[in-house]
Amino acid sequence: MALLSVLTPVLVVIFCLVLGFMLLKSQQTAPITNPRPWVDQDLQDSTETTEKEDEVDSSEEHCQQVPFSTQRYSEETMLKRSKDFYMLMNQRRTVRFFSTEPVPLEVIDNVIHTAGTAPSGAHTEPWVFVVVSDADLKHQVRLIIEEEEELNYRQRMGDKWVQDLSKLKTNWIKDYLDDAPYLILVFKQTYGILSNNKKKTHYYNEISVSISCGILLAALQNVGLVTVTSTPLNCGPRLRLLLKRPVNEKLLMLLPVGYPAPDATVPDLARKPLDRIVVHL
Amino acid sequence: MALLSVLTPVLVVIFCLVLGFMLLKSQQTAPITNPRPWVDQDLQDSTETTEKEDEVDSSEEHCQQVPFSTQRYSEETMLKRSKDFYMLMNQRRTVRFFSTEPVPLEVIDNVIHTAGTAPSGAHTEPWVFVVVSDADLKHQVRLIIEEEEELNYRQRMGDKWVQDLSKLKTNWIKDYLDDAPYLILVFKQTYGILSNNKKKTHYYNEISVSISCGILLAALQNVGLVTVTSTPLNCGPRLRLLLKRPVNEKLLMLLPVGYPAPDATVPDLARKPLDRIVVHL
Repeated sequence: MALLSVLTPVLVVIFCLVLGFMLLKSQQTAPITNPRPWVDQDLQDSTETTEKEDEVDSSEEHCQQVPFSTQRYSEETMLKRSKDFYMLMNQRRTVRFFSTEPVPLEVIDNVIHTAGTAPSGAHTEPWVFVVVSDADLKHQVRLIIEEEEELNYRQRMGDKWVQDLSKLKTNWIKDYLDDAPYLILVFKQTYGILSNNKKKTHYYNEISVSISCGILLAALQNVGLVTVTSTPLNCGPRLRLLLKRPVNEKLLMLLPVGYPAPDATVPDLARKPLDRIVVHL
Repeated sequence: MALLSVLTPVLVVIFCLVLGFMLLKSQQTAPITNPRPWVDQDLQDSTETTEKEDEVDSSEEHCQQVPFSTQRYSEETMLKRSKDFYMLMNQRRTVRFFSTEPVPLEVIDNVIHTAGTAPSGAHTEPWVFVVVSDADLKHQVRLIIEEEEELNYRQRMGDKWVQDLSKLKTNWIKDYLDDAPYLILVFKQTYGILSNNKKKTHYYNEISVSISCGILLAALQNVGLVTVTSTPLNCGPRLRLLLKRPVNEKLLMLLPVGYPAPDATVPDLARKPLDRIVVHL
Protein backbone atom coordinates (compact mmCIF):
# COMPACT_ATOMS: atom_id res chain seq x y z
CA MET A 1 0.00 0.00 0.00
CA ALA A 2 2.89 2.30 0.91
CA LEU A 3 4.59 1.37 -2.32
CA LEU A 4 1.47 2.24 -4.28
CA SER A 5 1.25 5.56 -2.49
CA VAL A 6 4.84 6.36 -3.45
CA LEU A 7 4.23 5.28 -7.02
CA THR A 8 1.06 7.38 -7.44
CA PRO A 9 2.86 10.54 -8.60
CA VAL A 10 4.92 8.48 -11.07
CA LEU A 11 1.79 6.87 -12.46
CA VAL A 12 0.14 10.26 -12.72
CA VAL A 13 3.17 11.63 -14.59
CA ILE A 14 3.10 8.70 -17.02
CA PHE A 15 -0.64 9.14 -17.51
CA CYS A 16 -0.24 12.85 -18.16
CA LEU A 17 2.60 12.28 -20.62
CA VAL A 18 0.52 9.75 -22.54
CA LEU A 19 -2.44 12.16 -22.51
CA GLY A 20 -0.22 15.03 -23.67
CA PHE A 21 1.22 12.90 -26.47
CA MET A 22 -2.25 11.89 -27.61
CA LEU A 23 -3.35 15.52 -27.53
CA LEU A 24 -0.39 16.51 -29.68
CA LYS A 25 -1.12 13.68 -32.08
CA SER A 26 -4.79 14.58 -32.39
CA GLN A 27 -3.85 18.24 -32.88
CA GLN A 28 -1.76 17.27 -35.88
CA THR A 29 -4.44 15.25 -37.58
CA ALA A 30 -7.50 17.12 -36.35
CA PRO A 31 -9.39 19.10 -38.98
CA ILE A 32 -8.14 22.69 -39.10
CA THR A 33 -10.50 24.94 -37.17
CA ASN A 34 -10.71 27.33 -40.13
CA PRO A 35 -11.22 24.90 -43.02
CA ARG A 36 -10.48 25.90 -46.61
CA PRO A 37 -13.26 24.01 -48.30
CA TRP A 38 -12.75 25.32 -51.79
CA VAL A 39 -8.99 24.87 -52.04
CA ASP A 40 -8.07 21.67 -53.76
CA GLN A 41 -5.29 19.88 -51.92
CA ASP A 42 -3.81 18.70 -55.17
CA LEU A 43 -3.78 22.30 -56.34
CA GLN A 44 -1.37 23.41 -53.64
CA ASP A 45 1.96 24.29 -55.08
CA SER A 46 4.36 21.71 -53.71
CA THR A 47 7.37 23.00 -55.58
CA GLU A 48 8.90 24.54 -52.53
CA THR A 49 8.58 21.45 -50.40
CA THR A 50 10.51 19.22 -52.76
CA GLU A 51 14.04 18.41 -51.78
CA LYS A 52 16.76 20.76 -52.80
CA GLU A 53 18.49 19.51 -55.87
CA ASP A 54 22.15 20.16 -56.36
CA GLU A 55 22.43 20.03 -60.09
CA VAL A 56 21.14 22.09 -62.97
CA ASP A 57 20.17 20.99 -66.41
CA SER A 58 23.56 21.75 -67.88
CA SER A 59 22.24 21.58 -71.43
CA GLU A 60 20.46 24.88 -70.86
CA GLU A 61 23.33 26.71 -69.24
CA HIS A 62 25.31 29.51 -70.82
CA CYS A 63 22.52 30.34 -73.22
CA GLN A 64 23.68 32.66 -75.96
CA GLN A 65 22.07 36.03 -76.56
CA VAL A 66 20.77 36.64 -80.08
CA PRO A 67 19.54 39.87 -81.69
CA PHE A 68 15.83 40.52 -81.38
CA SER A 69 13.45 42.64 -83.39
CA THR A 70 9.71 42.67 -83.64
CA GLN A 71 7.01 43.79 -86.05
CA ARG A 72 6.69 47.57 -85.73
CA TYR A 73 3.28 49.09 -86.48
CA SER A 74 2.39 52.76 -86.97
CA GLU A 75 0.61 54.38 -84.02
CA GLU A 76 -2.59 54.43 -86.04
CA THR A 77 -2.32 50.72 -86.77
CA MET A 78 -1.51 49.96 -83.12
CA LEU A 79 -4.64 51.80 -82.04
CA LYS A 80 -6.78 49.96 -84.54
CA ARG A 81 -5.28 46.57 -83.72
CA SER A 82 -5.65 47.15 -79.97
CA LYS A 83 -9.32 48.15 -80.39
CA ASP A 84 -10.12 45.25 -82.71
CA PHE A 85 -8.50 42.74 -80.37
CA TYR A 86 -10.39 44.21 -77.41
CA MET A 87 -13.69 43.92 -79.29
CA LEU A 88 -12.95 40.31 -80.22
CA MET A 89 -11.93 39.33 -76.69
CA ASN A 90 -14.79 41.26 -75.11
CA GLN A 91 -17.23 38.98 -76.94
CA ARG A 92 -15.82 36.02 -75.04
CA ARG A 93 -18.16 34.61 -72.44
CA THR A 94 -17.95 31.62 -70.15
CA VAL A 95 -20.35 29.10 -71.72
CA ARG A 96 -21.78 26.01 -70.00
CA PHE A 97 -23.97 24.73 -72.88
CA PHE A 98 -22.14 22.96 -75.67
CA SER A 99 -23.05 21.61 -79.07
CA THR A 100 -21.93 18.02 -79.65
CA GLU A 101 -20.72 18.97 -83.16
CA PRO A 102 -17.18 17.84 -83.88
CA VAL A 103 -14.33 20.35 -84.12
CA PRO A 104 -11.16 19.69 -86.16
CA LEU A 105 -8.42 18.38 -83.87
CA GLU A 106 -5.84 20.39 -85.77
CA VAL A 107 -7.51 23.60 -84.59
CA ILE A 108 -7.28 22.39 -80.98
CA ASP A 109 -3.62 21.52 -81.48
CA ASN A 110 -2.89 24.96 -82.91
CA VAL A 111 -4.65 26.58 -79.97
CA ILE A 112 -2.60 24.54 -77.50
CA HIS A 113 0.58 25.25 -79.43
CA THR A 114 -0.28 28.93 -79.00
CA ALA A 115 -0.78 28.49 -75.25
CA GLY A 116 2.69 26.92 -75.18
CA THR A 117 4.24 30.23 -76.25
CA ALA A 118 3.57 31.67 -72.78
CA PRO A 119 6.49 32.81 -70.66
CA SER A 120 7.35 30.72 -67.60
CA GLY A 121 9.62 30.99 -64.56
CA ALA A 122 13.20 30.32 -65.74
CA HIS A 123 11.73 29.01 -69.04
CA THR A 124 10.58 25.75 -67.45
CA GLU A 125 7.37 25.56 -69.58
CA PRO A 126 5.64 23.61 -66.78
CA TRP A 127 2.42 22.76 -68.63
CA VAL A 128 0.79 19.66 -70.10
CA PHE A 129 -2.53 19.82 -71.94
CA VAL A 130 -4.41 16.53 -71.95
CA VAL A 131 -7.05 16.56 -74.69
CA VAL A 132 -9.81 14.02 -74.07
CA SER A 133 -12.10 13.32 -77.03
CA ASP A 134 -12.97 9.64 -76.31
CA ALA A 135 -16.64 9.55 -75.26
CA ASP A 136 -16.14 6.89 -72.58
CA LEU A 137 -13.20 8.68 -71.03
CA LYS A 138 -15.07 12.00 -71.10
CA HIS A 139 -17.89 10.30 -69.25
CA GLN A 140 -15.53 8.87 -66.64
CA VAL A 141 -14.13 12.37 -66.12
CA ARG A 142 -17.70 13.59 -65.71
CA LEU A 143 -18.56 10.93 -63.12
CA ILE A 144 -15.53 11.80 -61.01
CA ILE A 145 -16.21 15.52 -61.19
CA GLU A 146 -19.93 15.25 -60.47
CA GLU A 147 -19.33 12.99 -57.50
CA GLU A 148 -16.77 15.34 -55.98
CA GLU A 149 -18.71 18.45 -56.91
CA GLU A 150 -21.83 17.18 -55.19
CA LEU A 151 -19.76 16.66 -52.06
CA ASN A 152 -18.30 20.13 -52.50
CA TYR A 153 -21.71 21.71 -52.76
CA ARG A 154 -23.31 19.68 -49.99
CA GLN A 155 -20.48 19.57 -47.50
CA ARG A 156 -17.22 21.28 -48.29
CA MET A 157 -18.05 24.73 -49.63
CA GLY A 158 -19.17 27.54 -47.40
CA ASP A 159 -22.70 28.84 -47.90
CA LYS A 160 -21.14 32.02 -49.24
CA TRP A 161 -19.41 30.37 -52.20
CA VAL A 162 -22.52 28.35 -53.04
CA GLN A 163 -24.56 31.57 -52.94
CA ASP A 164 -22.01 33.36 -55.15
CA LEU A 165 -22.19 30.53 -57.65
CA SER A 166 -25.97 30.22 -57.53
CA LYS A 167 -26.35 33.46 -59.43
CA LEU A 168 -24.28 31.91 -62.22
CA LYS A 169 -26.64 28.91 -62.24
CA THR A 170 -23.80 26.59 -61.43
CA ASN A 171 -24.33 23.25 -59.75
CA TRP A 172 -22.82 19.79 -59.75
CA ILE A 173 -24.63 18.49 -62.85
CA LYS A 174 -22.23 18.98 -65.73
CA ASP A 175 -23.83 17.87 -69.00
CA TYR A 176 -21.17 19.77 -70.86
CA LEU A 177 -18.53 17.21 -69.88
CA ASP A 178 -20.29 14.73 -72.18
CA ASP A 179 -21.46 17.24 -74.79
CA ALA A 180 -18.28 19.18 -75.56
CA PRO A 181 -16.22 17.37 -78.22
CA TYR A 182 -13.01 18.02 -76.24
CA LEU A 183 -12.06 18.29 -72.61
CA ILE A 184 -8.70 19.99 -72.14
CA LEU A 185 -7.26 19.10 -68.74
CA VAL A 186 -4.44 21.48 -67.92
CA PHE A 187 -1.76 20.11 -65.64
CA LYS A 188 1.00 22.10 -63.96
CA GLN A 189 4.29 20.27 -63.58
CA THR A 190 5.40 21.15 -60.08
CA TYR A 191 8.86 19.87 -60.92
CA GLY A 192 10.58 18.33 -63.93
CA ILE A 193 12.72 15.23 -64.19
CA LEU A 194 16.19 15.67 -65.66
CA SER A 195 17.88 13.04 -67.80
CA ASN A 196 19.86 11.95 -64.73
CA ASN A 197 16.54 11.38 -62.88
CA LYS A 198 17.09 14.38 -60.63
CA LYS A 199 14.29 16.81 -59.91
CA LYS A 200 14.33 20.24 -61.52
CA THR A 201 12.31 22.86 -59.64
CA HIS A 202 9.62 24.62 -61.63
CA TYR A 203 9.48 28.10 -60.16
CA TYR A 204 6.13 29.89 -60.15
CA ASN A 205 4.57 26.97 -62.01
CA GLU A 206 0.98 27.82 -61.09
CA ILE A 207 1.28 31.44 -62.23
CA SER A 208 3.03 30.34 -65.44
CA VAL A 209 0.37 27.76 -66.31
CA SER A 210 -2.41 30.24 -65.55
CA ILE A 211 -0.80 32.78 -67.89
CA SER A 212 -0.62 30.05 -70.51
CA CYS A 213 -4.34 29.39 -70.00
CA GLY A 214 -5.04 33.08 -70.59
CA ILE A 215 -3.36 32.79 -73.98
CA LEU A 216 -5.30 29.56 -74.59
CA LEU A 217 -8.58 31.40 -73.94
CA ALA A 218 -7.56 34.16 -76.35
CA ALA A 219 -6.69 31.56 -79.01
CA LEU A 220 -10.03 29.76 -78.55
CA GLN A 221 -11.98 33.00 -78.81
CA ASN A 222 -10.00 33.85 -81.94
CA VAL A 223 -11.40 30.75 -83.72
CA GLY A 224 -14.99 31.05 -82.43
CA LEU A 225 -14.84 28.22 -79.88
CA VAL A 226 -16.17 28.52 -76.35
CA THR A 227 -15.22 27.09 -72.97
CA VAL A 228 -15.81 27.36 -69.25
CA THR A 229 -12.66 27.88 -67.21
CA SER A 230 -13.20 25.41 -64.38
CA THR A 231 -11.00 24.41 -61.46
CA PRO A 232 -12.49 21.06 -60.38
CA LEU A 233 -12.34 20.95 -56.60
CA ASN A 234 -10.70 17.93 -55.01
CA CYS A 235 -10.82 15.97 -58.29
CA GLY A 236 -7.16 16.43 -59.15
CA PRO A 237 -5.72 13.20 -57.75
CA ARG A 238 -8.48 10.96 -59.20
CA LEU A 239 -8.35 12.60 -62.62
CA ARG A 240 -4.58 12.43 -62.64
CA LEU A 241 -4.76 8.68 -62.05
CA LEU A 242 -7.53 8.22 -64.63
CA LEU A 243 -5.45 10.01 -67.25
CA LYS A 244 -2.27 8.24 -66.14
CA ARG A 245 -0.31 11.42 -65.49
CA PRO A 246 2.84 11.28 -63.33
CA VAL A 247 2.98 12.50 -59.72
CA ASN A 248 4.80 15.73 -60.56
CA GLU A 249 1.74 16.90 -62.51
CA LYS A 250 -1.22 18.46 -60.72
CA LEU A 251 -4.51 19.34 -62.35
CA LEU A 252 -4.95 23.11 -62.44
CA MET A 253 -7.88 23.61 -64.81
CA LEU A 254 -10.37 21.76 -66.94
CA LEU A 255 -11.68 23.40 -70.11
CA PRO A 256 -14.46 21.76 -72.12
CA VAL A 257 -14.12 23.09 -75.66
CA GLY A 258 -16.52 23.22 -78.59
CA TYR A 259 -19.19 25.28 -80.30
CA PRO A 260 -21.93 26.72 -78.09
CA ALA A 261 -25.28 24.89 -78.13
CA PRO A 262 -27.84 26.63 -80.37
CA ASP A 263 -29.93 27.45 -77.28
CA ALA A 264 -26.95 28.38 -75.07
CA THR A 265 -27.49 31.07 -72.50
CA VAL A 266 -25.08 33.03 -70.29
CA PRO A 267 -25.63 35.04 -67.12
CA ASP A 268 -26.48 38.67 -67.88
CA LEU A 269 -23.32 40.04 -66.28
CA ALA A 270 -21.41 43.20 -67.10
CA ARG A 271 -17.66 43.74 -66.86
CA LYS A 272 -16.09 46.51 -64.82
CA PRO A 273 -15.52 49.67 -66.84
CA LEU A 274 -11.90 50.50 -67.67
CA ASP A 275 -11.62 53.21 -65.00
CA ARG A 276 -12.29 50.65 -62.28
CA ILE A 277 -9.41 48.39 -63.31
CA VAL A 278 -6.74 50.88 -64.38
CA VAL A 279 -4.86 53.55 -62.39
CA HIS A 280 -2.56 56.05 -64.14
CA LEU A 281 0.41 57.45 -62.21
CA MET B 1 3.33 16.91 5.56
CA ALA B 2 0.50 14.41 5.12
CA LEU B 3 -1.47 17.07 3.32
CA LEU B 4 1.43 17.77 0.97
CA SER B 5 1.75 14.05 0.27
CA VAL B 6 -1.91 13.88 -0.66
CA LEU B 7 -1.59 16.97 -2.86
CA THR B 8 1.48 15.70 -4.74
CA PRO B 9 -0.47 13.88 -7.48
CA VAL B 10 -2.65 16.96 -8.00
CA LEU B 11 0.39 19.21 -8.33
CA VAL B 12 1.97 16.76 -10.73
CA VAL B 13 -1.20 16.73 -12.83
CA ILE B 14 -1.26 20.54 -12.97
CA PHE B 15 2.44 20.62 -13.87
CA CYS B 16 1.93 18.10 -16.65
CA LEU B 17 -1.06 19.96 -18.05
CA VAL B 18 0.91 23.23 -18.12
CA LEU B 19 3.81 21.43 -19.77
CA GLY B 20 1.50 19.85 -22.32
CA PHE B 21 -0.10 23.20 -23.08
CA MET B 22 3.29 24.83 -23.59
CA LEU B 23 4.34 22.00 -25.86
CA LEU B 24 1.22 22.46 -27.95
CA LYS B 25 1.79 26.20 -28.13
CA SER B 26 5.40 25.82 -29.25
CA GLN B 27 4.31 23.27 -31.82
CA GLN B 28 2.02 25.84 -33.40
CA THR B 29 4.49 28.71 -33.57
CA ALA B 30 7.66 26.78 -34.32
CA PRO B 31 9.40 27.96 -37.51
CA ILE B 32 8.87 25.69 -40.49
CA THR B 33 11.93 23.51 -40.93
CA ASN B 34 11.95 23.92 -44.71
CA PRO B 35 11.83 27.69 -45.40
CA ARG B 36 10.58 28.99 -48.73
CA PRO B 37 13.10 31.72 -49.47
CA TRP B 38 11.91 32.70 -52.92
CA VAL B 39 8.21 32.99 -52.19
CA ASP B 40 7.16 36.56 -51.60
CA GLN B 41 5.16 36.85 -48.37
CA ASP B 42 2.92 39.49 -49.89
CA LEU B 43 2.27 37.11 -52.76
CA GLN B 44 0.68 34.49 -50.54
CA ASP B 45 -2.99 34.23 -51.19
CA SER B 46 -4.63 35.38 -47.98
CA THR B 47 -8.17 35.04 -49.24
CA GLU B 48 -8.82 31.94 -47.23
CA THR B 49 -7.62 33.39 -43.96
CA THR B 50 -9.93 36.39 -44.02
CA GLU B 51 -12.91 36.22 -41.76
CA LYS B 52 -16.04 34.60 -43.02
CA GLU B 53 -18.50 37.18 -44.16
CA ASP B 54 -22.18 36.60 -43.78
CA GLU B 55 -23.55 38.70 -46.56
CA VAL B 56 -23.38 38.61 -50.33
CA ASP B 57 -23.37 41.46 -52.77
CA SER B 58 -27.10 41.34 -53.30
CA SER B 59 -26.91 43.50 -56.42
CA GLU B 60 -25.39 40.56 -58.28
CA GLU B 61 -27.78 37.91 -57.06
CA HIS B 62 -30.41 36.24 -59.18
CA CYS B 63 -28.59 37.07 -62.38
CA GLN B 64 -30.77 36.51 -65.42
CA GLN B 65 -29.74 34.18 -68.21
CA VAL B 66 -29.64 35.69 -71.68
CA PRO B 67 -29.27 33.99 -75.08
CA PHE B 68 -25.71 33.61 -76.32
CA SER B 69 -24.28 33.16 -79.76
CA THR B 70 -20.81 33.62 -81.13
CA GLN B 71 -19.10 34.26 -84.43
CA ARG B 72 -19.05 30.97 -86.35
CA TYR B 73 -16.21 30.41 -88.80
CA SER B 74 -15.85 27.71 -91.46
CA GLU B 75 -13.41 24.92 -90.59
CA GLU B 76 -11.01 26.27 -93.17
CA THR B 77 -11.15 29.74 -91.63
CA MET B 78 -10.72 28.31 -88.14
CA LEU B 79 -7.61 26.48 -89.26
CA LYS B 80 -6.16 29.59 -90.86
CA ARG B 81 -7.02 31.83 -87.91
CA SER B 82 -5.57 29.35 -85.41
CA LYS B 83 -2.33 29.08 -87.40
CA ASP B 84 -1.99 32.83 -87.89
CA PHE B 85 -2.58 33.50 -84.21
CA TYR B 86 -0.02 30.86 -83.28
CA MET B 87 2.55 32.43 -85.60
CA LEU B 88 1.91 35.88 -84.14
CA MET B 89 2.13 34.68 -80.53
CA ASN B 90 5.13 32.48 -81.21
CA GLN B 91 7.09 35.61 -82.17
CA ARG B 92 6.61 36.92 -78.63
CA ARG B 93 9.76 36.91 -76.56
CA THR B 94 10.57 38.13 -73.09
CA VAL B 95 12.58 41.29 -73.69
CA ARG B 96 14.74 43.08 -71.10
CA PHE B 97 16.06 45.90 -73.32
CA PHE B 98 13.64 48.74 -73.99
CA SER B 99 13.59 51.80 -76.19
CA THR B 100 12.68 55.00 -74.36
CA GLU B 101 10.37 55.99 -77.24
CA PRO B 102 6.90 56.99 -76.09
CA VAL B 103 3.90 54.76 -76.78
CA PRO B 104 0.33 56.12 -77.04
CA LEU B 105 -1.44 55.74 -73.69
CA GLU B 106 -4.65 54.84 -75.48
CA VAL B 107 -3.01 51.68 -76.81
CA ILE B 108 -2.01 50.70 -73.25
CA ASP B 109 -5.54 51.38 -72.05
CA ASN B 110 -7.00 49.20 -74.81
CA VAL B 111 -4.58 46.41 -73.93
CA ILE B 112 -5.57 46.59 -70.25
CA HIS B 113 -9.24 46.76 -71.18
CA THR B 114 -8.64 43.52 -73.11
CA ALA B 115 -6.98 41.91 -70.09
CA GLY B 116 -10.09 42.85 -68.11
CA THR B 117 -12.20 40.52 -70.28
CA ALA B 118 -10.63 37.50 -68.55
CA PRO B 119 -12.86 35.12 -66.62
CA SER B 120 -12.54 35.12 -62.82
CA GLY B 121 -13.79 33.05 -59.89
CA ALA B 122 -17.47 33.92 -59.37
CA HIS B 123 -16.97 36.95 -61.69
CA THR B 124 -15.08 38.90 -59.02
CA GLU B 125 -12.68 40.52 -61.56
CA PRO B 126 -10.00 40.79 -58.86
CA TRP B 127 -7.43 42.81 -60.84
CA VAL B 128 -6.04 46.33 -60.80
CA PHE B 129 -3.49 47.51 -63.36
CA VAL B 130 -1.39 50.43 -62.14
CA VAL B 131 0.26 52.14 -65.12
CA VAL B 132 3.30 54.18 -64.11
CA SER B 133 4.63 56.59 -66.72
CA ASP B 134 6.00 59.35 -64.46
CA ALA B 135 9.81 59.19 -64.71
CA ASP B 136 10.42 59.90 -61.00
CA LEU B 137 7.94 57.30 -59.88
CA LYS B 138 9.37 54.73 -62.30
CA HIS B 139 12.79 55.41 -60.79
CA GLN B 140 11.47 54.97 -57.25
CA VAL B 141 9.99 51.64 -58.33
CA ARG B 142 13.38 50.72 -59.75
CA LEU B 143 15.22 51.63 -56.55
CA ILE B 144 12.92 49.47 -54.44
CA ILE B 145 13.16 46.53 -56.81
CA GLU B 146 16.93 46.71 -57.24
CA GLU B 147 17.48 46.92 -53.50
CA GLU B 148 15.30 43.89 -52.80
CA GLU B 149 16.57 41.98 -55.82
CA GLU B 150 20.15 42.41 -54.74
CA LEU B 151 19.18 40.95 -51.35
CA ASN B 152 17.34 38.15 -53.14
CA TYR B 153 20.35 37.28 -55.24
CA ARG B 154 22.90 37.63 -52.48
CA GLN B 155 20.99 36.09 -49.60
CA ARG B 156 17.50 34.77 -50.15
CA MET B 157 17.56 32.70 -53.32
CA GLY B 158 19.04 29.25 -53.47
CA ASP B 159 22.11 28.80 -55.65
CA LYS B 160 19.95 26.76 -57.97
CA TRP B 161 17.54 29.56 -58.84
CA VAL B 162 20.42 32.00 -59.35
CA GLN B 163 22.10 29.47 -61.65
CA ASP B 164 18.84 28.93 -63.56
CA LEU B 165 18.51 32.68 -64.04
CA SER B 166 22.16 33.22 -64.93
CA LYS B 167 21.63 31.59 -68.29
CA LEU B 168 18.95 34.21 -68.97
CA LYS B 169 21.48 36.93 -68.07
CA THR B 170 19.23 38.15 -65.32
CA ASN B 171 20.55 40.08 -62.34
CA TRP B 172 19.44 42.82 -60.01
CA ILE B 173 20.37 45.74 -62.29
CA LYS B 174 17.14 46.67 -64.09
CA ASP B 175 17.76 49.53 -66.54
CA TYR B 176 14.48 48.69 -68.20
CA LEU B 177 12.54 50.04 -65.23
CA ASP B 178 13.72 53.54 -66.22
CA ASP B 179 13.79 52.96 -69.97
CA ALA B 180 10.37 51.47 -70.67
CA PRO B 181 7.77 54.23 -71.13
CA TYR B 182 5.30 52.33 -68.95
CA LEU B 183 5.48 50.03 -65.97
CA ILE B 184 2.28 48.06 -65.49
CA LEU B 185 2.06 46.80 -61.91
CA VAL B 186 -0.59 44.13 -61.70
CA PHE B 187 -2.32 43.79 -58.33
CA LYS B 188 -4.59 40.96 -57.26
CA GLN B 189 -7.41 41.98 -54.95
CA THR B 190 -7.49 39.24 -52.35
CA TYR B 191 -10.92 40.45 -51.28
CA GLY B 192 -13.29 43.22 -52.27
CA ILE B 193 -15.12 45.76 -50.14
CA LEU B 194 -18.90 45.88 -50.47
CA SER B 195 -20.90 49.09 -50.21
CA ASN B 196 -21.74 48.18 -46.62
CA ASN B 197 -17.98 47.93 -45.88
CA LYS B 198 -18.12 44.14 -45.57
CA LYS B 199 -15.48 41.96 -47.18
CA LYS B 200 -16.31 39.98 -50.29
CA THR B 201 -14.09 36.94 -50.86
CA HIS B 202 -12.28 36.80 -54.20
CA TYR B 203 -12.05 33.10 -54.97
CA TYR B 204 -9.03 31.93 -56.96
CA ASN B 205 -7.84 35.52 -57.29
CA GLU B 206 -4.24 34.63 -58.13
CA ILE B 207 -5.21 32.21 -60.89
CA SER B 208 -7.75 34.70 -62.26
CA VAL B 209 -5.25 37.56 -62.36
CA SER B 210 -2.61 35.34 -63.96
CA ILE B 211 -5.10 34.34 -66.68
CA SER B 212 -5.82 38.02 -67.19
CA CYS B 213 -2.07 38.64 -67.57
CA GLY B 214 -1.95 35.94 -70.25
CA ILE B 215 -4.55 37.86 -72.24
CA LEU B 216 -2.60 41.08 -71.55
CA LEU B 217 0.53 39.49 -73.05
CA ALA B 218 -1.43 38.40 -76.12
CA ALA B 219 -2.82 41.92 -76.52
CA LEU B 220 0.64 43.49 -76.20
CA GLN B 221 2.10 41.12 -78.75
CA ASN B 222 -0.80 41.92 -81.07
CA VAL B 223 0.28 45.59 -81.21
CA GLY B 224 4.02 44.99 -81.46
CA LEU B 225 4.94 45.95 -77.89
CA VAL B 226 7.26 43.91 -75.70
CA THR B 227 7.53 43.18 -71.99
CA VAL B 228 9.21 41.00 -69.40
CA THR B 229 6.81 39.16 -67.12
CA SER B 230 8.41 39.72 -63.74
CA THR B 231 7.32 38.79 -60.24
CA PRO B 232 9.38 41.13 -58.04
CA LEU B 233 10.36 39.15 -54.98
CA ASN B 234 9.60 40.66 -51.58
CA CYS B 235 8.91 44.09 -53.12
CA GLY B 236 5.13 43.82 -52.91
CA PRO B 237 4.52 45.64 -49.63
CA ARG B 238 6.89 48.54 -50.39
CA LEU B 239 5.57 49.01 -53.92
CA ARG B 240 2.00 48.81 -52.69
CA LEU B 241 2.70 51.65 -50.24
CA LEU B 242 4.59 53.67 -52.87
CA LEU B 243 1.64 53.43 -55.25
CA LYS B 244 -0.87 53.99 -52.44
CA ARG B 245 -2.82 50.82 -53.06
CA PRO B 246 -5.13 49.47 -50.35
CA VAL B 247 -4.29 46.50 -48.13
CA ASN B 248 -6.57 44.08 -49.98
CA GLU B 249 -4.36 44.43 -53.08
CA LYS B 250 -1.15 42.43 -53.43
CA LEU B 251 1.40 42.89 -56.19
CA LEU B 252 1.42 39.85 -58.44
CA MET B 253 3.42 40.96 -61.47
CA LEU B 254 5.30 43.90 -62.90
CA LEU B 255 5.41 44.38 -66.66
CA PRO B 256 7.58 47.10 -68.21
CA VAL B 257 6.04 47.87 -71.59
CA GLY B 258 7.40 49.58 -74.69
CA TYR B 259 9.20 49.01 -77.96
CA PRO B 260 12.33 46.89 -77.85
CA ALA B 261 15.67 48.74 -77.91
CA PRO B 262 17.24 48.76 -81.39
CA ASP B 263 20.09 46.59 -80.06
CA ALA B 264 17.86 44.34 -77.94
CA THR B 265 18.92 40.73 -77.55
CA VAL B 266 17.12 37.69 -76.16
CA PRO B 267 18.45 34.34 -74.93
CA ASP B 268 18.68 31.80 -77.74
CA LEU B 269 16.05 29.49 -76.25
CA ALA B 270 13.69 27.12 -78.03
CA ARG B 271 10.17 26.21 -76.98
CA LYS B 272 9.05 22.64 -76.39
CA PRO B 273 7.59 21.04 -79.53
CA LEU B 274 3.83 20.45 -79.53
CA ASP B 275 4.13 16.73 -78.81
CA ARG B 276 5.85 17.45 -75.50
CA ILE B 277 3.01 19.61 -74.19
CA VAL B 278 -0.08 17.87 -75.57
CA VAL B 279 -1.50 14.39 -74.90
CA HIS B 280 -4.45 13.03 -76.92
CA LEU B 281 -6.79 10.54 -75.27
